[in-house]
Amino acid sequence: MASKISLNIGMFGCGTVGGGVFELLHNPKKISHLRAIGVDAVISKICVQNVAKKRDLQFLSEQKTRFTSSYADILEDSSINCIIELMGGVTDAKHVVFEAIKKGKHVITANKALVANFMPEIVKLLEENPSVRFGYEASVCGGIPIIHTLQNAYSGDEITEIAGIMNGTTNYMLSKMEHEGIAYDAVLKEAQDLGYAEANPSADVDGFDVQSKIAILAKLGFGGVVKPDQIPTVGISRISTVDFEYAKMMDSTIKLLGVAKLLKPGNAETQTPPEVAVYVSPVVVPRSNVIANIGGATNLVNVRSSNLANSAYVGQGAGRFPTANSVVNDVIQLARGEAPFDPFKSSRAVTLQPDFEAHFFVRIKITDGVGIIRAIGQHAEAANVSIYSILQSPIVDRKNVEFVVTTDLTTLSRVRQMCQNIIKLDFVQEEPLFIPIL
Amino acid sequence: MASKISLNIGMFGCGTVGGGVFELLHNPKKISHLRAIGVDAVISKICVQNVAKKRDLQFLSEQKTRFTSSYADILEDSSINCIIELMGGVTDAKHVVFEAIKKGKHVITANKALVANFMPEIVKLLEENPSVRFGYEASVCGGIPIIHTLQNAYSGDEITEIAGIMNGTTNYMLSKMEHEGIAYDAVLKEAQDLGYAEANPSADVDGFDVQSKIAILAKLGFGGVVKPDQIPTVGISRISTVDFEYAKMMDSTIKLLGVAKLLKPGNAETQTPPEVAVYVSPVVVPRSNVIANIGGATNLVNVRSSNLANSAYVGQGAGRFPTANSVVNDVIQLARGEAPFDPFKSSRAVTLQPDFEAHFFVRIKITDGVGIIRAIGQHAEAANVSIYSILQSPIVDRKNVEFVVTTDLTTLSRVRQMCQNIIKLDFVQEEPLFIPIL
Repeated sequence: MASKISLNIGMFGCGTVGGGVFELLHNPKKISHLRAIGVDAVISKICVQNVAKKRDLQFLSEQKTRFTSSYADILEDSSINCIIELMGGVTDAKHVVFEAIKKGKHVITANKALVANFMPEIVKLLEENPSVRFGYEASVCGGIPIIHTLQNAYSGDEITEIAGIMNGTTNYMLSKMEHEGIAYDAVLKEAQDLGYAEANPSADVDGFDVQSKIAILAKLGFGGVVKPDQIPTVGISRISTVDFEYAKMMDSTIKLLGVAKLLKPGNAETQTPPEVAVYVSPVVVPRSNVIANIGGATNLVNVRSSNLANSAYVGQGAGRFPTANSVVNDVIQLARGEAPFDPFKSSRAVTLQPDFEAHFFVRIKITDGVGIIRAIGQHAEAANVSIYSILQSPIVDRKNVEFVVTTDLTTLSRVRQMCQNIIKLDFVQEEPLFIPIL
Repeated sequence: MASKISLNIGMFGCGTVGGGVFELLHNPKKISHLRAIGVDAVISKICVQNVAKKRDLQFLSEQKTRFTSSYADILEDSSINCIIELMGGVTDAKHVVFEAIKKGKHVITANKALVANFMPEIVKLLEENPSVRFGYEASVCGGIPIIHTLQNAYSGDEITEIAGIMNGTTNYMLSKMEHEGIAYDAVLKEAQDLGYAEANPSADVDGFDVQSKIAILAKLGFGGVVKPDQIPTVGISRISTVDFEYAKMMDSTIKLLGVAKLLKPGNAETQTPPEVAVYVSPVVVPRSNVIANIGGATNLVNVRSSNLANSAYVGQGAGRFPTANSVVNDVIQLARGEAPFDPFKSSRAVTLQPDFEAHFFVRIKITDGVGIIRAIGQHAEAANVSIYSILQSPIVDRKNVEFVVTTDLTTLSRVRQMCQNIIKLDFVQEEPLFIPIL
């Protein structure tokens, strides 16, 4: 049925993941295994910035693989029928991916920012070039086969929520803060020293990495393109050890989650698109939830759907071989003629609802005084927020008191309004931190 | 690339899962969605024992779907190009599946016992009929896409261990025993009253259900056929609330696991097959392990591999729609021409090693006296087992004392030997319970 394709591959980029992909495809033991399962694939050209740089590539044979620094050397080579893009970024990577599709070359990429930001353009190019297959398993949660799973396992089902821990660096940091009580700045420095976090850690700690990933998963889950920059995104930089102390009182912990949620199904007859809420935020997660027990650099994606109820996928979110393995799985699927012809699934409109309902955890920093609870209560009431509980550790320093208010079910916009009111109170020292409770 | 197939389906069996499959394929809303993703499939005949029985089938149109009680009515119908087998059992089900393959009809089945027990025969029949595709996603862990995942996500990787909670009934029972301290007999009765356990609960509580499932996963993980009846299998019927008390002292719980483990990779040059150990047993699982936190009827499969390190897949193990969804995913894959041509992956020999290494938890029931620890210690030493710890709750009844010995890393056979020695001691009341520690 499916017809196999011999792949002559041009790879762009040859860093950590690229070296892993090369090894998995060129190791003689792997080759014979791949042959046995019907895969014939060779990386014949690798485009790198500096051809002269010494590389630690195992199994490199210069008869088979040539380095180049020219994009055209791969893009204009009609014998190359597939590219693997591992350059990152959205300028040059966009150029080579778009040109490759136009030239009828299959594309496999690990580039979440490219996929998330240019999905409509990629979908359109693929429609114009229907013979081209596009694999991007490695773009979300390195070692978890979540793209293939969402492409396949939910085709006859209706997804209602996708939520997960999709950034190993911040999960490592939050786990450290929770278990060892280390302050945010110290744990960030440690993560940087270990090479987990970048010198400029913004993509991780401000949630932009998760933003791209949840945009991609939202497309697969709900059919509609959600622009990453439209996703309300809060990172972890304001989370402090005191938040973990309060979360612990609630038998909970705090995790940075990407969440995409169906608020209201669409109606085909009235052509009403489904309403979805998508956000990235630290979330208070009850200990009893499996998400709370995912520590360190591990990732988890939890999918709710009408047929399967609740399913979770857990694995390494990054790293050389987990990510390379996902790239190679796309290579295998493509070579065996089993790659889907609709990698982004059906395209339909969705209405992105900026607001969503949840219980919220609101941490308020004040100078102690009298009438505080009454004043907070008034402002909550004015914003139409009902308070569920007030948590207060024994006060050590009356000038710096941090306490937590949890709300009944309400909306993000109401809680934001409440916090904007509260900040105007004299005794309140800074804008309250407000994060949802799962 | 992949060529689509219009499926005219004959379904055998129409109980809980069959009704779900029918609904997912014949609901007009689902049909239009399936059409949109390139799936054209109709169930035109359903074979049931009693055609006259009133069935609660939604979306049944008698123009489209006819009931029959004759196997031949489907098998001899050349317009039917696919069967879905949901009869269960291994006699009639074997007949219809084998005949269908011989007649060039694609097969989709949820029958774990059939697949596990007749894998070599099925593989051979598929080799003789290379156009036939064989889907069995629903046969293991209803709602978890573990078959497709093992078929696809690990093709370029090397799996070293597959372990999981694969039986919801026993996991429900063990969770109840742990959290509510209910005795085994009472919790079994409750599970039977709720319809979770059969009147004859042996398939669940004695581990045979898990035995079939781990045999199937072992084939996908390691390439070799493992006969279910060669898998050392221990059920949960000897687990008592006291075991949970001792597990709790170890900050652990007890789960019934199916485990398939690579002990020694094969060597292609010397044609030495890989050595694997496969077993079903209650296992002491540390609380920190994600497996310990899977409660109730949920299933989990954990896969260790060289590229991905550790991945876990969590979801509903059974139930109408989770299982029907897996059947429908096979239908979709097949109709879109994306079903694998090697559903059982490469066939190679494996050596099933009946013994395996682990730390063990040994519960010994005695009449209290003097010199007991010394005697136990002697027998452990005689069997070459090193004791790691001895756990003893305060003794209430000196005539019935249960205490636990945990061992250093040793082998199943040595622990068995030790227990066979111990049972001969006068003060020992029954054969000790011995289960591995994860």
